[in-house]
Amino acid sequence: MRILLVGAGGVGSAAVAIAARRTFFDTMVVADHDPARAARAVAGHGDRFVAATVDASSADAVAALCREHQITHVLNAVDPRFVMPIFDGAFAAGADYLDMAMSLSRPHPDRPYAETGVKLGDEQFAVADQWSAAGRLALCGIGVEPGLSDVFARYAADELFAEVDEIGVRDGANLTVDGYDFAPSFSIWTTIEECLNPPVVWEADRGWYTTPPFSEPEVFEFPEGIGPVECVNVEHEEVLLIPRWVDARRVTFKYGLGNEFIEVLRTLHKLGLDGTAPVRVGGVSVSPRDVVAACLPDPATLGDRMRGKTCAGTWVRGTGPDGNPREVYLYHVVDNEWSMREYGHQAVVWQTAVNPVVALELLAAGAWRGTGVLGPEALPSKPFLDLLTGYGSPWGMEER
Amino acid sequence: MRILLVGAGGVGSAAVAIAARRTFFDTMVVADHDPARAARAVAGHGDRFVAATVDASSADAVAALCREHQITHVLNAVDPRFVMPIFDGAFAAGADYLDMAMSLSRPHPDRPYAETGVKLGDEQFAVADQWSAAGRLALCGIGVEPGLSDVFARYAADELFAEVDEIGVRDGANLTVDGYDFAPSFSIWTTIEECLNPPVVWEADRGWYTTPPFSEPEVFEFPEGIGPVECVNVEHEEVLLIPRWVDARRVTFKYGLGNEFIEVLRTLHKLGLDGTAPVRVGGVSVSPRDVVAACLPDPATLGDRMRGKTCAGTWVRGTGPDGNPREVYLYHVVDNEWSMREYGHQAVVWQTAVNPVVALELLAAGAWRGTGVLGPEALPSKPFLDLLTGYGSPWGMEER
Repeated sequence: MRILLVGAGGVGSAAVAIAARRTFFDTMVVADHDPARAARAVAGHGDRFVAATVDASSADAVAALCREHQITHVLNAVDPRFVMPIFDGAFAAGADYLDMAMSLSRPHPDRPYAETGVKLGDEQFAVADQWSAAGRLALCGIGVEPGLSDVFARYAADELFAEVDEIGVRDGANLTVDGYDFAPSFSIWTTIEECLNPPVVWEADRGWYTTPPFSEPEVFEFPEGIGPVECVNVEHEEVLLIPRWVDARRVTFKYGLGNEFIEVLRTLHKLGLDGTAPVRVGGVSVSPRDVVAACLPDPATLGDRMRGKTCAGTWVRGTGPDGNPREVYLYHVVDNEWSMREYGHQAVVWQTAVNPVVALELLAAGAWRGTGVLGPEALPSKPFLDLLTGYGSPWGMEER
Repeated sequence: MRILLVGAGGVGSAAVAIAARRTFFDTMVVADHDPARAARAVAGHGDRFVAATVDASSADAVAALCREHQITHVLNAVDPRFVMPIFDGAFAAGADYLDMAMSLSRPHPDRPYAETGVKLGDEQFAVADQWSAAGRLALCGIGVEPGLSDVFARYAADELFAEVDEIGVRDGANLTVDGYDFAPSFSIWTTIEECLNPPVVWEADRGWYTTPPFSEPEVFEFPEGIGPVECVNVEHEEVLLIPRWVDARRVTFKYGLGNEFIEVLRTLHKLGLDGTAPVRVGGVSVSPRDVVAACLPDPATLGDRMRGKTCAGTWVRGTGPDGNPREVYLYHVVDNEWSMREYGHQAVVWQTAVNPVVALELLAAGAWRGTGVLGPEALPSKPFLDLLTGYGSPWGMEER
């Protein structure tokens, strides 16, 4: 297996550190628009890793880099603006493809908070037949959320329930960052994108529909000492992926943003600072959202100042195999102190990065195989969960 | 009198419309960095008005323009970053000078929320002797606040009180802007500057000192139907000007920001978006605060969508001439519906702009005269208040 990792930011760098301990692949080319960042990501990890420069907005550039290094699998670890050129570039070069976020949505032009417009992943699913016909696999949304959360949904449906009423991905943390008034632990660009877009919900008798941002607040109790966190509906790939392969009456995603973060996002939106279209400022043009990101510390550099745990998981309610009501929460917790000590990467990016490495190892071993555009829930869950545990990062389950 | 007005934004354009109805001056040159904006400001107001282009950051450019047009009085109507070059340029060219905001402050390096550092106007007062020696007048802070509020302080001390305990400038409004989630009715650049700097307070036995932002909240009852508004301490020129010429035990400035606006300002600060130092974004450098301003509608263009009234005024507490305790609020209210109908300019910029025009007319008539760097409270209050009423915009007083 010869991997091209596109993006040497927080998640990409953590993926290098995780993959460096595994033997399943021959080469990993780590490409970034910033050659210095790519070089930093591979430094000290041995000669299977090669730094490269790439313009991720160019499918041709991605394809050329694939051909140059005879790439078999492309792992996309940049922000979701670049999904389509990397996806198309991998296809053009005959490589398989993995990502952790899908092609972007566009709200319904007239009823944005009621109906879906272009949905997350629609552009990728639109060409699924071409991928199938070519015998190529695009495994989409294989980070932690989407990713491990989808694997949990598959596992619950197969192993724990006779019938599923609701699948609700729930994400919460008790992370703090010393020395900053406000320092998000994940890409603010992506967080704005997913939190301010109209949240999407799926119901079996209604299909996909949207709501206003921050809808249906609920306090969810997270395990391992994190405790209760207020969660709200957020647009997320799981809601688009899970219903394609798993039978359920309702699928939601709620993010434990907390009140302060919700207020910040509301204010950015109120002031138009969430926008991506360039505005003229003095003699130059900039995207306001890029300015917001530039004013905040780079989340990948905050690991030393972070404390606490982050939890990703899937809550499922339905009827157990014995015919009785059942409710479970399948989850994965990473303690920042552990991920910093073991890998030198902070908890949120480490938790995202470990899953595509596990997936690549399953593909290398043949335990996962397929063609077309697939979500993680299209593939068997047990080998994934077993190998994740084998990586030293076990998952857990609470009966509720 | 030959006037150079620097800045054809909201306040500058309103000043043109107000001055156009008065006969006291011969020429007004209206200069802006944007020639189209200067041209728009003078259009239709007759041939006493001349549009020009100027770089307000260059004292040499300001002086050259003064000499070219034999300017006798420079009126500065741009944001306070440009106070010093315009002030210096006027002096170099032998012109008198008026502004509506003074040179900027810099917080105390170690104790920003307890002690003053460089205070508002310090750079201007530092050269007051040179202005006096040259027989030239710099009349500083002669908008509405500072400006009319300082005239009210002078009037109260001279005419209404035997002894003054406290002078508190209080500003509040019930303005709304149709069609926008958030649309400040005044320059956001200046609002951020004055609201996020440490507020300054003056006490006779302590001198000037500072507090954390948004300190000492109080609900102040505004007249003419505006009603109660939550006001907080804000850094403002009156606190630096009034104690130099008026005896009082305490001087404060409180701004009726309202909770939503305070939250917005807190969030901008938390995210570093209030900063003026350029940040790198992609291939360019921009000041985050300029980006915030660029994302919001231009307040000067919102008059048609605005509704309500704005109130500026000075609350005074002390001992009346009869030896009894007295408390008054001297105020000036502008109804946006009136200012739009009469002048085509929204209430907040119109209320700011009328005062320097009144002051220029008093200087032209010789009713106001002086040399050095003076605040409005250094000059007699009655001629000013009478002429303001003569402009069709009377002031009011409430005994409390």
